[in-house]
Amino acid sequence: MPELRKDPVIGRWVIIATERARRPGNFVNEQDKYFLKDKKYCLHCQWKEIPLYAIKENGRPASSRNWKVCAVQASSPFLKMENIFDRQRKGLYDVINGYGRHEVVIETSDHVANMADLTTEQIILVLKTYRVRLIECKNDPHLQYVIIYKNYGWQAGAHSQGHALSHMIATPVNPLRVKEKLAGARSYFKNEKRCIFCDLIREELQSRQRIVEESEHFLAITPFAARFLFEVWLLPKSHHCDYIEGIEGKEKDLAEILRNLLRKFKVGLDDPAYNFMIHTAPLHRYDPNGQKWQTIEQDYHWHMELMPRLTRVAGFEKGTGFYICSIPPEMTAEYLREIKDV
Amino acid sequence: MPELRKDPVIGRWVIIATERARRPGNFVNEQDKYFLKDKKYCLHCQWKEIPLYAIKENGRPASSRNWKVCAVQASSPFLKMENIFDRQRKGLYDVINGYGRHEVVIETSDHVANMADLTTEQIILVLKTYRVRLIECKNDPHLQYVIIYKNYGWQAGAHSQGHALSHMIATPVNPLRVKEKLAGARSYFKNEKRCIFCDLIREELQSRQRIVEESEHFLAITPFAARFLFEVWLLPKSHHCDYIEGIEGKEKDLAEILRNLLRKFKVGLDDPAYNFMIHTAPLHRYDPNGQKWQTIEQDYHWHMELMPRLTRVAGFEKGTGFYICSIPPEMTAEYLREIKDV
Repeated sequence: MPELRKDPVIGRWVIIATERARRPGNFVNEQDKYFLKDKKYCLHCQWKEIPLYAIKENGRPASSRNWKVCAVQASSPFLKMENIFDRQRKGLYDVINGYGRHEVVIETSDHVANMADLTTEQIILVLKTYRVRLIECKNDPHLQYVIIYKNYGWQAGAHSQGHALSHMIATPVNPLRVKEKLAGARSYFKNEKRCIFCDLIREELQSRQRIVEESEHFLAITPFAARFLFEVWLLPKSHHCDYIEGIEGKEKDLAEILRNLLRKFKVGLDDPAYNFMIHTAPLHRYDPNGQKWQTIEQDYHWHMELMPRLTRVAGFEKGTGFYICSIPPEMTAEYLREIKDV
Repeated sequence: MPELRKDPVIGRWVIIATERARRPGNFVNEQDKYFLKDKKYCLHCQWKEIPLYAIKENGRPASSRNWKVCAVQASSPFLKMENIFDRQRKGLYDVINGYGRHEVVIETSDHVANMADLTTEQIILVLKTYRVRLIECKNDPHLQYVIIYKNYGWQAGAHSQGHALSHMIATPVNPLRVKEKLAGARSYFKNEKRCIFCDLIREELQSRQRIVEESEHFLAITPFAARFLFEVWLLPKSHHCDYIEGIEGKEKDLAEILRNLLRKFKVGLDDPAYNFMIHTAPLHRYDPNGQKWQTIEQDYHWHMELMPRLTRVAGFEKGTGFYICSIPPEMTAEYLREIKDV
């Protein structure tokens, strides 16, 4: 019998349609139709971009030619720093100009498409680069939020030429989904005096039904109210609201578990398109008068979401925010758990 | 210069990236790869389904064989009426069983794929069928919301065999996006003592920048904070919270303007996949004690959203609910407005 399940953080309901369950592993692969794989057409292999930041193998800053990982301004940025911050009312409507940042992290100097094919050492450098770029954004009082995310494969929205990239977009407002998450976590803390993510980790470690992978510092689960097939949440076991501080000293552990998950996707789901994103706290935790405006250090808990793009989003989801997930997360967790030696 | 724009109802911010504007009309068409067009394989051409409701050309109820439009139970329903309503707590989580309805409206007895290719008279019957099925759902106190929506084309989530269908899903909870909309409209009314949709219609009629089509009773605009290329909102000019009562006597007018919009999509955008959905008030406006729990008659205003599926949703949108629309709605409105004689 199908179940309706409520995401305890956001309050979003989903239908878990157990009766419609297909066996995992048997999906049409939409990917790569418009993907240029050839290295000679790849912008990121030309060494023509000027890095905003670059690091060498040893983690030290690098020049524009000898980097292992670097961050550049996106070639067609959605938001730009040179714009002056300007917020206006236009009749009924509220407008801010396109103030912000849009950077691309080039994850390797080799022409490799999928982060799953990088070494753990290389992924550590990527995770460190994310951290440095996040810190950079903290200096701008107009920036409110930074989302770091990855689009791999055509179906996941990538325009890439087969070179592994992540994106960082810094916005002058806190996005709706971020506010929903913060509000959900705050409300839970207010009632329970505990972090909802910490409670969730305890619950999942006890039930063990939805665990995909566990390491010293991280837990990977399929969420109870999964929106997408094989959706995975990657949660740091120790409480911290923020990636910048929460990741310190745990880069290697995160790189290993993240690489394992991406290898499981690649091997077990036939190299699907996927997205992942880092959900961290907003950049500033003070209101314009310098008062602390949220109990965010207590009630929020940074984490990552990973989602293979195996299905399409139809009118029902668009109209209601009510997702349909056609295999229970307990089954997708089991399937992913059993993929070994990736 | 790109702009950030805030949807005045929900509070969702979007980026209107004027600098990245492509000329409308030049899109890769993903559609129909998995679409069986052949009539002889079409389930809905076999007359084997037993209608829950069917109507004849003259609008009168029809038998199972001589209908022009009918509603049937979905062959693999997401939710079912025969399940007993059951809501439970499971540790940290909240669960309801799969109680609800999932019906399919077969829009024609002919094997025609796109509603755009139906006559106005046929679409009137479809709109009347929506109304009858909505009324049917009102009788069940456990059902909270009904979404009526359409998926046309593979990219929009259709599994159809080339036969024009709409879906109706009735859920035992109010979905998140619906609650957001209701809350946004309520908050506006509380402050302004006016309906936000009525204000929006006045504003759009005055500025005339985003009007696509206007009829006696309806206004079609591209929304100020459009999420998708060529997204269109279809708003009834007279205030009513609810499709059931709001549509009465206006079926012909709505069928004409809806058909015009769908023809414009087909002719002007090269037969794209699309979704549309009806946003109406929740089924019940009373709390369990019989008290009116919302000022919904005053502050909500039913409407439709139409969205051609020309772009993909990437990690940024998934992570933040922050959409990127690469052509300003003023330009897409102008483009759609200028498509004549469809």
